[in-house]
Amino acid sequence: MAVLPVLGDGAAGAEARAVFDDIREKRQTDYVNNFWRVLAADPALLKAVWERLQVVMAPGALDPLTKELIYVAVSVANGCDYCIHSHTAAARAKGMTEAQHGELLAVIAMASQTNALATALQVPVDAAFDAGNSG
Amino acid sequence: MAVLPVLGDGAAGAEARAVFDDIREKRQTDYVNNFWRVLAADPALLKAVWERLQVVMAPGALDPLTKELIYVAVSVANGCDYCIHSHTAAARAKGMTEAQHGELLAVIAMASQTNALATALQVPVDAAFDAGNSG
Amino acid sequence: MAVLPVLGDGAAGAEARAVFDDIREKRQTDYVNNFWRVLAADPALLKAVWERLQVVMAPGALDPLTKELIYVAVSVANGCDYCIHSHTAAARAKGMTEAQHGELLAVIAMASQTNALATALQVPVDAAFDAGNSG
Amino acid sequence: MAVLPVLGDGAAGAEARAVFDDIREKRQTDYVNNFWRVLAADPALLKAVWERLQVVMAPGALDPLTKELIYVAVSVANGCDYCIHSHTAAARAKGMTEAQHGELLAVIAMASQTNALATALQVPVDAAFDAGNSG
Amino acid sequence: MAVLPVLGDGAAGAEARAVFDDIREKRQTDYVNNFWRVLAADPALLKAVWERLQVVMAPGALDPLTKELIYVAVSVANGCDYCIHSHTAAARAKGMTEAQHGELLAVIAMASQTNALATALQVPVDAAFDAGNSG
Amino acid sequence: MAVLPVLGDGAAGAEARAVFDDIREKRQTDYVNNFWRVLAADPALLKAVWERLQVVMAPGALDPLTKELIYVAVSVANGCDYCIHSHTAAARAKGMTEAQHGELLAVIAMASQTNALATALQVPVDAAFDAGNSG
Repeated sequence: MAVLPVLGDGAAGAEARAVFDDIREKRQTDYVNNFWRVLAADPALLKAVWERLQVVMAPGALDPLTKELIYVAVSVANGCDYCIHSHTAAARAKGMTEAQHGELLAVIAMASQTNALATALQVPVDAAFDAGNSG
Repeated sequence: MAVLPVLGDGAAGAEARAVFDDIREKRQTDYVNNFWRVLAADPALLKAVWERLQVVMAPGALDPLTKELIYVAVSVANGCDYCIHSHTAAARAKGMTEAQHGELLAVIAMASQTNALATALQVPVDAAFDAGNSG
Repeated sequence: MAVLPVLGDGAAGAEARAVFDDIREKRQTDYVNNFWRVLAADPALLKAVWERLQVVMAPGALDPLTKELIYVAVSVANGCDYCIHSHTAAARAKGMTEAQHGELLAVIAMASQTNALATALQVPVDAAFDAGNSG
Repeated sequence: MAVLPVLGDGAAGAEARAVFDDIREKRQTDYVNNFWRVLAADPALLKAVWERLQVVMAPGALDPLTKELIYVAVSVANGCDYCIHSHTAAARAKGMTEAQHGELLAVIAMASQTNALATALQVPVDAAFDAGNSG
Repeated sequence: MAVLPVLGDGAAGAEARAVFDDIREKRQTDYVNNFWRVLAADPALLKAVWERLQVVMAPGALDPLTKELIYVAVSVANGCDYCIHSHTAAARAKGMTEAQHGELLAVIAMASQTNALATALQVPVDAAFDAGNSG
Repeated sequence: MAVLPVLGDGAAGAEARAVFDDIREKRQTDYVNNFWRVLAADPALLKAVWERLQVVMAPGALDPLTKELIYVAVSVANGCDYCIHSHTAAARAKGMTEAQHGELLAVIAMASQTNALATALQVPVDAAFDAGNSG
């Protein structure tokens, strides 16, 4: 059940359809997933998010698969069901193997438990970790 | 301010000191950071966490740096101050460059905002993302 | 799938039904939504939450729509699916326009990303923001 | 203790200083707060965040103070200490009274507790809240 | 650094001081901790929270120590530094032993990791766990 | 909709089936719930989680029901729908009464709201709560 409707191409306005077309071209697929179709109710927000996403997820110092693994990790910690589904699928499309998925899950689980322990114990940060203040 | 004291080698019990020594040997450093020194109040928990951490973070289908980046990402999303410091430091020690750090931050920021949007809009998961039920 | 049943008027006890009736009267509608019908398993908790809600959400220094927008924002950040649906609906009932909804989403997304960045970077709080200690 | 240094004007590069100058001009103050000075390690990210922030927080269908209240609410729910300080200060600068602050806190507290209850009870979303699918 | 000042008895208004006195009497101690002294800026909110807290934490079907352990667990998962400190101290004052503290930490860590795994895998809820709808 | 399939006994590999059998024996039931059947895609992770869970949840300084209540509390605060269902069911199986469930909910709700307030106000931790540094 969505808070706003999933807009088909016919129901979306011209500005939103232009973004849908750009998604199709850049991703080389006819399929536009629901996130964009719901966000289409606010075409300016849709456009801003889609444009920023392309900049951030482009290959750079980190490769696209590593970026997707990080995306999944954040989405799990934030409990975003939709994003877990869509970015796990994206990671697979970018070559994530079953073994890599298993290790991703294991690291997420490990971090979740040591995060909880360090927080529960309020462990003071070691001076050795300080990056200093160069101002 | 910690919930439990940061135990120096003299204050820790024999079982905890044995873990400290193992940390020193495996990490090839004399430095044992505060997380382990606070957790040392419960030597069985200390040992279980340290042993599991080695299994999970060992090189495998994902390389050690990628695992650290995922660890940092989860720690940020969970708001664990200590873990952000310690695992950012660990990522640097494993070769994370400034450019990679910048891209890690950008992906975390991007995921955080689309997580919020997908949740705020309660976007229904596309059938295309379903992994099926092979039972 | 609920953890406790959604109680119809017939299944609820007298104390819970009295709260249902008060909800109907105060909200000028016959409809009592599921949150109250599930909470009705514990009539004392039901009553305490309903009474406090009326105090908090009453018009005051902030108008009712602003309060609903804040409620939605918290619910999104906490990932409460039910609350996002019910309070977005409440905001609309109190006059939230499509444009306002779009801006609410944009602010939530913006805050989510700068929250993540400030946390990831562990930015020290500026002395200028200190409210002092007047004790 | 920061993960990256708080860069003074002298230590920041030309691209970052240009953003600092823009912040000074747009905000009509000489003061550039720590968030920007730490983010300055990655000038492209700094610029992207600053530019998007101006778009999102500009007066629109919601007034600037309402946007700040929403920003504070998200920051509290996400547990971002820095952001709570900086955006509470910003809300005051935009006219938030003590009474409004008190009501903001009361709504955040109320939402936090009903979020927890609705999640703990896994309350099913009422069909009445469905926005339909106009695809 | 607080968002509002920590009010000493002299700086607090009459309504807030009355709550301070009630805290002293009910807790049989002269010490009023900072949470109440900061909340005292809004005496109505201070009073509402203090009164509700007494109802909720009173001995009932669950004993006071069990309630404190639950309180600590929620505070850790929510990352509330202050609450972790104050409620761990309260649990000790109500008799929590070192061994119980260790087990509390172990359960929190365990839950945190299986929470992350179940979320990452989006495990469908078993029909066996459904409480039905008795409406 | 799961990210990985719910594996029936026939679809699971030998290592995973051995864990299923151990679950059946230790829990004295033929039913293996979905969490384990989805985790079975990675038999090493499945085994590690199941073995650790038995250690952590065994009777000790805290009784099994208290441990389940803590588990539910963490799961609610982390927003893990599956875990809320499975551990509420487990708590009932271990004797949680309706009255205890109601009090568990009330404590979770209370903690959630004071967590939010202490965080929103950035209340400084009282020196009285410091556990010191015995290093």
